[in-house]
Amino acid sequence: MLVVMKQGASQEAISRVVETIQDMGYDARPIPGKQRTAVGLIGNDGRVESARLEGLDGVLEVIAVSHPYKQVSREWKAEDTVVTLANGTRIGGSEITIMAGPCAVESEDQIVGIARTLSEMGVTILRGGAFKPRTSPYSFQGLGEEGLVLLARAREATGMAVVTEALDPEGVELVAEYADILQIGARNMQNYPLLRKAGRSGKPVLLKRGMSATIKELLLAAEYLLAEGNDQVILCERGVRSFDTHTRNLLDLTAIPVVKSLSHLPIIADPSHGTGLRAKVTPMARAAVAAGADGLMVEVHPDPGRALSDGAQSLYPEQFRELMTQIRVIAQALDRRVGSPRTVEKALSS
Amino acid sequence: MLVVMKQGASQEAISRVVETIQDMGYDARPIPGKQRTAVGLIGNDGRVESARLEGLDGVLEVIAVSHPYKQVSREWKAEDTVVTLANGTRIGGSEITIMAGPCAVESEDQIVGIARTLSEMGVTILRGGAFKPRTSPYSFQGLGEEGLVLLARAREATGMAVVTEALDPEGVELVAEYADILQIGARNMQNYPLLRKAGRSGKPVLLKRGMSATIKELLLAAEYLLAEGNDQVILCERGVRSFDTHTRNLLDLTAIPVVKSLSHLPIIADPSHGTGLRAKVTPMARAAVAAGADGLMVEVHPDPGRALSDGAQSLYPEQFRELMTQIRVIAQALDRRVGSPRTVEKALSS
Amino acid sequence: MLVVMKQGASQEAISRVVETIQDMGYDARPIPGKQRTAVGLIGNDGRVESARLEGLDGVLEVIAVSHPYKQVSREWKAEDTVVTLANGTRIGGSEITIMAGPCAVESEDQIVGIARTLSEMGVTILRGGAFKPRTSPYSFQGLGEEGLVLLARAREATGMAVVTEALDPEGVELVAEYADILQIGARNMQNYPLLRKAGRSGKPVLLKRGMSATIKELLLAAEYLLAEGNDQVILCERGVRSFDTHTRNLLDLTAIPVVKSLSHLPIIADPSHGTGLRAKVTPMARAAVAAGADGLMVEVHPDPGRALSDGAQSLYPEQFRELMTQIRVIAQALDRRVGSPRTVEKALSS
Amino acid sequence: MLVVMKQGASQEAISRVVETIQDMGYDARPIPGKQRTAVGLIGNDGRVESARLEGLDGVLEVIAVSHPYKQVSREWKAEDTVVTLANGTRIGGSEITIMAGPCAVESEDQIVGIARTLSEMGVTILRGGAFKPRTSPYSFQGLGEEGLVLLARAREATGMAVVTEALDPEGVELVAEYADILQIGARNMQNYPLLRKAGRSGKPVLLKRGMSATIKELLLAAEYLLAEGNDQVILCERGVRSFDTHTRNLLDLTAIPVVKSLSHLPIIADPSHGTGLRAKVTPMARAAVAAGADGLMVEVHPDPGRALSDGAQSLYPEQFRELMTQIRVIAQALDRRVGSPRTVEKALSS
Repeated sequence: MLVVMKQGASQEAISRVVETIQDMGYDARPIPGKQRTAVGLIGNDGRVESARLEGLDGVLEVIAVSHPYKQVSREWKAEDTVVTLANGTRIGGSEITIMAGPCAVESEDQIVGIARTLSEMGVTILRGGAFKPRTSPYSFQGLGEEGLVLLARAREATGMAVVTEALDPEGVELVAEYADILQIGARNMQNYPLLRKAGRSGKPVLLKRGMSATIKELLLAAEYLLAEGNDQVILCERGVRSFDTHTRNLLDLTAIPVVKSLSHLPIIADPSHGTGLRAKVTPMARAAVAAGADGLMVEVHPDPGRALSDGAQSLYPEQFRELMTQIRVIAQALDRRVGSPRTVEKALSS
Repeated sequence: MLVVMKQGASQEAISRVVETIQDMGYDARPIPGKQRTAVGLIGNDGRVESARLEGLDGVLEVIAVSHPYKQVSREWKAEDTVVTLANGTRIGGSEITIMAGPCAVESEDQIVGIARTLSEMGVTILRGGAFKPRTSPYSFQGLGEEGLVLLARAREATGMAVVTEALDPEGVELVAEYADILQIGARNMQNYPLLRKAGRSGKPVLLKRGMSATIKELLLAAEYLLAEGNDQVILCERGVRSFDTHTRNLLDLTAIPVVKSLSHLPIIADPSHGTGLRAKVTPMARAAVAAGADGLMVEVHPDPGRALSDGAQSLYPEQFRELMTQIRVIAQALDRRVGSPRTVEKALSS
Repeated sequence: MLVVMKQGASQEAISRVVETIQDMGYDARPIPGKQRTAVGLIGNDGRVESARLEGLDGVLEVIAVSHPYKQVSREWKAEDTVVTLANGTRIGGSEITIMAGPCAVESEDQIVGIARTLSEMGVTILRGGAFKPRTSPYSFQGLGEEGLVLLARAREATGMAVVTEALDPEGVELVAEYADILQIGARNMQNYPLLRKAGRSGKPVLLKRGMSATIKELLLAAEYLLAEGNDQVILCERGVRSFDTHTRNLLDLTAIPVVKSLSHLPIIADPSHGTGLRAKVTPMARAAVAAGADGLMVEVHPDPGRALSDGAQSLYPEQFRELMTQIRVIAQALDRRVGSPRTVEKALSS
Repeated sequence: MLVVMKQGASQEAISRVVETIQDMGYDARPIPGKQRTAVGLIGNDGRVESARLEGLDGVLEVIAVSHPYKQVSREWKAEDTVVTLANGTRIGGSEITIMAGPCAVESEDQIVGIARTLSEMGVTILRGGAFKPRTSPYSFQGLGEEGLVLLARAREATGMAVVTEALDPEGVELVAEYADILQIGARNMQNYPLLRKAGRSGKPVLLKRGMSATIKELLLAAEYLLAEGNDQVILCERGVRSFDTHTRNLLDLTAIPVVKSLSHLPIIADPSHGTGLRAKVTPMARAAVAAGADGLMVEVHPDPGRALSDGAQSLYPEQFRELMTQIRVIAQALDRRVGSPRTVEKALSS
C-alpha cells in the first residue's frame, strides 16, 4: 500500500503517517519523489484499514498495491479450478459447459418437457428458478419448494444436473437438498450472511456478478465462499448497469479474460440476462465463448410468448439448437469443445 | 402500457399482440400512426408481464405508461408521510432531522461518549453499526449483539433514538428489540426476504438506495415494505456508482426532488458514504439540505484516525458542530428548521 | 410521440397539451387510460421539440415512439450498405474486413515495415494516426502532414488502403487528399462542424462511438454525414465509459447486433481502445467477430515497448497472426469469411 | 509513477522495467514488498508514456502518483483565480456570480426583453446560444451570427456581459468579437483544436465538463487553455451521464469541492442542463451554491412553452426571482454573497 502525500506536506505530517502505519502493526518506508513524498506500507496482509490513513493531514491519496483477495487469486493457486458434478459434468477445464432452461419453473410438463428437449441437444445442466427475486412485490415470485421438487423430477427423467437460486440463508438448506449447484443471484452478490451459508452448504456455488460490482468486488464476494472452505465456485458475468437503455444490461465480456488472469475460478456468461432481448442472445452467447468463457447459462422456454417471467429474453428451442451448432465451431478456434452427455459419461466411467 | 410495432409490421403481428393482451386479461386498443402502429394496453394493474409482449414478432418496444409501484406513490397518498419516533423526533415534516454517530460501535466509551457530544449539539438520532457488511471477509465485521447493547446504553444516557442496520431476516428480530429505526443497507436494497421481514417488524425502516438502483427500483423496494403493512419508511440517498474514482460514490442529490415529487415518503441524504472523503462531507451535507432533503445521516467519530471502519469519511466533532450551524441558516431559505431536542420535547408533550 | 399526463390532470391541462401539439403543426389524439390519460402526437417528422411539451402543466412524461434518425435506419433502406474502397476492399457485406496498424505513424521505417508485415498476413487496410487527440497537451500529438505522406508511401508499397483521423474541419481536406477512409474519433462524435465537413468530403467515413454515447446518439451523428449526401459510412464500437477501472473502457459488443437491427450501415469493433490492454485484445477481437461485427480495427506495432502512444494495447505482429488464424475459424460459424488481398483482387477484376 | 510487478515476477522482468524507465530518461528505484516488488519512476515531468511500461512482461499495473496537469493545479498556484469582465463582474472570489438567459437567442424582442428582466433582478451576465450543437441534424441550430448581433444589442441595452458558445476553431474569432466570455460546450470539452484556438482568443473561457469526463480530464482540458497562455478560465459542472433516466443527466455537485481542492480555477454549476427538468432546477441551483459553487448558469425564458430549444428545463422569470431570493440566504451560510450590478459598479469604480 502506498500513501501519497500532498506536494509540500510537512515533515510532521509524514511522521504522523509513519507512526500510524506502525501503530497498525506494519512497517513504513518513506519514498521521496520529485513532486511529492510517498510512504510505502510493507507487510500488508489484506486487513489494512486504508480509511484510517486516507483521513490523515497531508495525505493526497492511498493506493492499494496488493490485492485484497487471497484464496480466489491465481497467485494463491496457479492451476485452473475444475468443478465436477455428480453426473460427471465438469466446469472450468478444456470443455465449454452449457446450462439451459426456463427462467422459472412453471409446471411439471414445462420443466420435464424442456429438460428432455435440452438433454437431447447435448445440454447436461438444467437451469430453472423456484424462488424468483422480482423487482416488484406484485410480480410472480416462483413456485417455491414445489419448483424444487419439479426440478428433481426433471433430473430423474434426464440425468441432467440442476442449478437453481437460493434467496436467503434459510433457503440455502432447502435448495441444497434438491440442487446440484446453488445459485447466488446478482442482487445478492454482497449478501454476506447468504454467502457464508452457501459457503458451508457443501454444494458447488454459481455466483453471479452484481449489477454494478467491479471485478474486484466479485472476487471478494467469492472470497467469502472460499473463506468458509468451499472452493467449488463458478463465477458468472451477466451484464452490468450502464447508460444506454437499448439493452437491459451491458454484457461485459472483457470481464472473462480479466477474471481468468486474476483468478483460478471458472467463469461463465449469461447472455439472456446480459442483454434482455431474444434476438441479441445468440450473438452474445457466441461472443462469450469466443472471449474464453468456460460455459454459458441460457434461458430457453418451450413457449416464450407464454412464459411467466423473462419471456422476451428466452430462446425458442430451435434457436437454441442452432446456437449449439455455432458454438461448437467457435470452440474449435480456441482448441476447446462443448461438453455433452457423451463426454460426461466418459468422465463418470473413468 | 404501449406496445410499439415495427414500421411495416404485418396485420397478423398486430392481431397477435391484441390477442396476447386479451389473453392476459386486459383490453387492447390499436393506435395507427404516421410511421407505425402502437397498441395500447388498457387496465394495467401493475402486474403486466411486459416481457411476454416484448418478444412477439413485429414488436419494436414496449413502453410503460403507468408506474409499477402503488402505495409509495403520491398518486396513492398526496400528503407527506411523517415518521414519528418514541423520543418524539419526526422525519418528513417541516423539520430537518439529523442522524449522526460513528460508522461502527466500537466500545461503550466510544458510543456513549459521542452520543453525549452529539446530543448536546442538538442531534436526536444516534447512528452506529453493530453488524457491518464489509466487502472483504477479512475486515472488521462489527461487535454484533454486544454493539446493540451498547447502543441501548447510549440511548438511556442521552434520550436519543437509535438507528442501526440488520443484515439478514434472522437479524431483523434481534435488531428490532434494540433499535428505534431498522436500517436496510445499500447492498441489501433488493434483498426481498429481508425487506419482507423488516416490513413485518413493527419498526420504522430506513431504506438506503442501492449502488446502482434507479429511483424506480428504490420505490419498488420500498413498496415491498408497504405491501407488508409498514408505512413508516424513510428513504436515503447515499451515492451511486459512477465512472470517476475521485470520490467513492456519486451523490445523486437530484434524486431528492425527484423522489419527493413521485412519493409521499421522506428522504434523507448520507453525505458520508455519498462522498467517502471527510473534506467533501460538509459541502455535500449543506447541498443536500438545500436540495430539500428531510434530513441527514452523518458519520462523526471522536477520533477518526483510529476508527475501525470508514475513518476517512468521519467528521471530527468540531467539524460537525460547524456543519450544524451552517445548515440552520440554509434551512431558513426553504422555510424549514433543523429539529432539536427542544422541538422533540414539544412534540412529546403535545 | 406520446404525452403522458399525471393522474388526475385537469381537462384544462389536457386541452393545453392538445393545443400546443396543434400549434406545432401536428395532430393530437387523447387516449384515456385506467390510471391516466395520454395524448398521442400524430405525424411526427422527427423535428418535434419535445421539451416544449415536457414543461407543460400536468405532463408526467413525454415518450418518443418514432425514432429521430431517418436515412441511417433500416426502415429507410432495408439492404445492408457495403462500402467499397479503391483497392477493392469491401466493408459491410459477407466478408469480415480487418484494419490494422500502429496507433500513431512514427517514422517511414515503422509504418512501411509494419504495412508490409500486415499485408503479407492478409490485411488490406492500414490504420495509423497522423493527428492524435491526446488528453494531455504535453503528450506526443502525432507527426501531422508528414504522417499522412508516410501513410501514402506505405500504401504505394503494399496496395493497402489507408484509414486515418481528422481532428477539425480544416484538417478534413488535408486528410482527404491522402486517406481512403476518413476517421472521426470518439471524442469528436458530436463535433457537428467536423461531421458536416466530413459528410461533404467525398470520402468514406469511419465514425467511432463516443465514450458515453447511446446507440441512438451514434446513429444521429451518422445521420449528420448522410444528411450531407455521404452514405459511405462505417460505424465503430470502441468501448464506453464504465465504473470498473480494470479496463480502460467497457467494450459494448451488444451494440453490434443492436446497430445491425436498427441500421443498414456496417459496424466494426476496435478491441484495442475497447480494452486498453494487450492481453485482452485477442479474446475481445474474437468475440467481436462472433457477435457479428463486419470487421475489426486492431493496433499492431513492430515494437510495442517503444511505441510513442498506446503501446500497452498494441499487439506484437506474431500475436496478430495468431488472431487472424482464430477469427478465420470463427467466421465459418457465421457463414462469413475474412477478407484478404485475394478476395480484394477478385472484386477489382470483376 | 509506480510500476507494480506481478507476484513472482522474474529478476529479468524487473530489470527490463528499470532499463525501460532509464531509456525514457528517468530514474528507477525498485521497492521490494512482502507480496511483490514495485519500481518507482523518479522525476516524472508529466510526459511519461505509461502505456510503454504497462505492456512489459511481469507488470501488474502502473499507478500514477503525480498528477498529469500542471498550470491548473493548486500546487502550481495556491490562491484562487478571479476572472474579471469588462463590466466589472468577477467570477471566483467571495461573490457568487449568476449567468442567466434563454437556451437560444430567438429574436431581438426575446433576448433584449429577458435581459432587461434579468438585469433588474440583479443578474450581470447574460447567456444565450447563437450556435447550437444539436443531437439531430434536423433540429433548430441557432440564428448564427445574427444571434451574436442580438446578444450585443442586449448588452448595450442593459450593461450585462455576454457568454455564448463557439462550436469550431473558425467560430472562435467570430464569437470573440461579440462575447465577453467564450463558452466551450460539453460535447467539445476534448475538441483540442477548438481549445487551442480559444486559448489564444484573449477572452475568458467557460469550459463545460464533458458528459462522461472525469475531473482529471476536465482539468487536463483546461490545461490546454492555460498552455496557450490563457488563465482566464471558468469551469462548469453540468451533469454527467448515468444509468437512471429520471433526469437528463446526473448533476455531480461533489465535483465542486473536489475541483476547488485540486485547482485554483473558479467552478460554477449549470442546473438546467444538469437536470433537464424545470421543477428540479431550483432545488439543484440552491444545492450547488450550498456545495460551494462560485456561480450558476441558469436557463430562463420569457415563455418556456414556446422556446425553440430546451423549453422543459427553462425557468419562468418569476421562478427565477424566487431562486435568487433563496440563494442570497444560502450564500450567508458560507460567508459569501450573490454578486449584483451594485457590487459590479463598485468593482469598476475602484
